Amino acid sequence: MPTVRVTVMLKPGVLDAPGQAILAGLRALGYPVEGARVGKVVELAVPEALRARVDEMCERFLANPLIETWTVEEPEAVR
Amino acid sequence: MPTVRVTVMLKPGVLDAPGQAILAGLRALGYPVEGARVGKVVELAVPEALRARVDEMCERFLANPLIETWTVEEPEAVR
Repeated sequence: MPTVRVTVMLKPGVLDAPGQAILAGLRALGYPVEGARVGKVVELAVPEALRARVDEMCERFLANPLIETWTVEEPEAVR
Repeated sequence: MPTVRVTVMLKPGVLDAPGQAILAGLRALGYPVEGARVGKVVELAVPEALRARVDEMCERFLANPLIETWTVEEPEAVR
């Protein structure tokens, strides 16, 4: 069963509260990180016939196209 | 400022409730996906001097080593 990896990130400019929290946390621990953005990753086991519809799944369900972008990585790219 | 991408996934066998919810949602929409696992991705802008400590940051703060694994991707691999 091929596995595809979908990565969903907030668009630039959209407030990323978890990212801000991680940034503050790392700095509080003594790591002078300059920026942090948080997104989600979904690894899907999709039948071959469904592979072409992954982008459609992202647009309809996995991401909010208004505020998020997504990338789909092919099986060979997934570790 | 180099950017590194940290991907945190639950270890195999750890209950992934968001993944189960996504699986059920995709199936309800008519996509016969066979499996879904959800993780988080953190893109960090780190000074060069801090690059070697990203793994330490993951272990201490970004992930829970008991139930999660993480991978760190180098700048050239980040889109």
